[in-house]
Amino acid sequence: MKTPSPVLWSGERLRLLDQRLLPHNVCYLDFVDAKGVATAIKDMVVRGAPAIGITAAYAVVLAAQQHGSNAAAINADVEILAASRPTAVNLFWALRRMRRVWQAHDHRDVETSLVARLLAEAHAIAAEDRAACAAMGQRGAAFITAGSNVYTHCNAGALATGGEGTSLAVVREAFRRGHLQQAFVGETRPWMQGTRLTAWELQQEGIPFCVSTESAAATLFRQGQVQWVIVGADRVAANGDVANKVGTYPLAILARHHGVKFMVVAPTSTIDGALSDGEQIPIEQRPPQEVTMFAGTAIAPAGSAAFNPSFDVTPAELVDVLVTETCAVERPSRQSMAALWVHRA
Amino acid sequence: MKTPSPVLWSGERLRLLDQRLLPHNVCYLDFVDAKGVATAIKDMVVRGAPAIGITAAYAVVLAAQQHGSNAAAINADVEILAASRPTAVNLFWALRRMRRVWQAHDHRDVETSLVARLLAEAHAIAAEDRAACAAMGQRGAAFITAGSNVYTHCNAGALATGGEGTSLAVVREAFRRGHLQQAFVGETRPWMQGTRLTAWELQQEGIPFCVSTESAAATLFRQGQVQWVIVGADRVAANGDVANKVGTYPLAILARHHGVKFMVVAPTSTIDGALSDGEQIPIEQRPPQEVTMFAGTAIAPAGSAAFNPSFDVTPAELVDVLVTETCAVERPSRQSMAALWVHRA
Repeated sequence: MKTPSPVLWSGERLRLLDQRLLPHNVCYLDFVDAKGVATAIKDMVVRGAPAIGITAAYAVVLAAQQHGSNAAAINADVEILAASRPTAVNLFWALRRMRRVWQAHDHRDVETSLVARLLAEAHAIAAEDRAACAAMGQRGAAFITAGSNVYTHCNAGALATGGEGTSLAVVREAFRRGHLQQAFVGETRPWMQGTRLTAWELQQEGIPFCVSTESAAATLFRQGQVQWVIVGADRVAANGDVANKVGTYPLAILARHHGVKFMVVAPTSTIDGALSDGEQIPIEQRPPQEVTMFAGTAIAPAGSAAFNPSFDVTPAELVDVLVTETCAVERPSRQSMAALWVHRA
Repeated sequence: MKTPSPVLWSGERLRLLDQRLLPHNVCYLDFVDAKGVATAIKDMVVRGAPAIGITAAYAVVLAAQQHGSNAAAINADVEILAASRPTAVNLFWALRRMRRVWQAHDHRDVETSLVARLLAEAHAIAAEDRAACAAMGQRGAAFITAGSNVYTHCNAGALATGGEGTSLAVVREAFRRGHLQQAFVGETRPWMQGTRLTAWELQQEGIPFCVSTESAAATLFRQGQVQWVIVGADRVAANGDVANKVGTYPLAILARHHGVKFMVVAPTSTIDGALSDGEQIPIEQRPPQEVTMFAGTAIAPAGSAAFNPSFDVTPAELVDVLVTETCAVERPSRQSMAALWVHRA
């Protein structure tokens, strides 16, 4: 795979690829403390639910490195990390895993031992995510028949995960199987993850792609140019409702209207069994300037208000298949989602 | 009205407000020949179906000024104007009106007399459009009940017409009646007519507004925050199918899905009775750079392809009401559209 990893552990530092500068500059920022990482998550240096989870795990290692046996200080850092972004559940899931290691640790051990254990757990989270991406790619690609075009939204690729991506793992695998004709890349306003990140990943892999505004997707669907919409997820509720990048929900409605299939690809770490449905998923509101400015330049007249939810919720009934690393659930519902808990246990 | 006119006749020159520089710079470009105007239309110095029609009419005056009695040269200029943009029918309609004046002209008259007659016709086209905007505002506002929020797409305002706009005339009148709570302004990628132009018009009028990406519209609809989607049109077929700025068609599907009403506002000059349905409306494809670049800066990796249709077609069955200056047609169809021909005759 030619896409650089968004999260690297390097000696005692965490290196994050600054995704705000892509595709024009490939630049890593180095972090030595968890607070800096929390700010980087909030500011979208790193984004994508699985990548945020991996990043948070390594940030806990940084906290332990910095604070030694000062449990209160480490805890405070974990709280700051947990508050960095509210929607993607992988963040909380990863922090819970790290906390479990820490709580199980025998404090009569020397301090470096805690750091080593935490680092091993963070590496495990990253490795598991890489494997999950590969499994999702296989499971999802099984649905893509020869000669298909797909439409993607946002970036759920290598830049968003520890491996080949969630939805982009499916795209990559369908391409390797010779089944993918072309990928349409939804630009994904306001942050342009499609144009800046997904187009860049696909170009590096030699996968034919074409960028589209969100507005033009319905025309593509009506023209019969798309067989599958494939997206990732930031949180999936127990009934199969999906929170993902804003713009996912209208794509699901438009896909159903035109008979285009709709696939959600997410590791089980993205499933939040504690939430019965999507209405309970907290949706992050981001600054209006993301909509009214572009690259530091005002687009709107000064003082314009903007509505800028970062995510939306797609009801399960609009999802044709939910692909995880353990199984693919067609037409997810509270009942059919139960298969996931069995596989996960 | 506080919005400057997009098209001004000034002595022997045509002045066009350069809408590419709005909202930050209010700058008029002066034209003395029709070829320059055709390029300005193509390059979107001026845009909006009615404004393009008015502009083309004045450009014929420039052609007559320049070429005197050289009918072939005038004709060639008219052909160049007709080729500037393919979708909005007002362009062809205005050129037909101007050609009729020219053909009816007695060439034994002195040359200035032809120019004077053409100028009178261009002024008449502009004045009729101003009056049509006022009438559409009244007819459309009658549907907006107190406390309503509306969602607009692109700019169908004063900047797109000779008066208060088509859809924005309705928004202005609903506000004057005290029935409008807030207007949501769809940003309208890739050209940002919503953010740059509609937001600016509404701000000048003191009408409360909030910009939204196209992706967030469905969330607004689902939250019950919008009662009407109100858009303009570039061409309406005889059965009521509507060509308008790309992104209109998905808004119509999403509105119907959520029980939000969908209004199209367009003067009868936008109705093309010669086309039986919307499939026959030519849709302009614009350069991919409009999608892959922003304000001269690349967003996508070099060499990225982009799908960039400038318009889409909304089937009549998704339109709740089509408002013209002569009447409002609810649930337009080939049959109910016949009312328009009666009023037009």
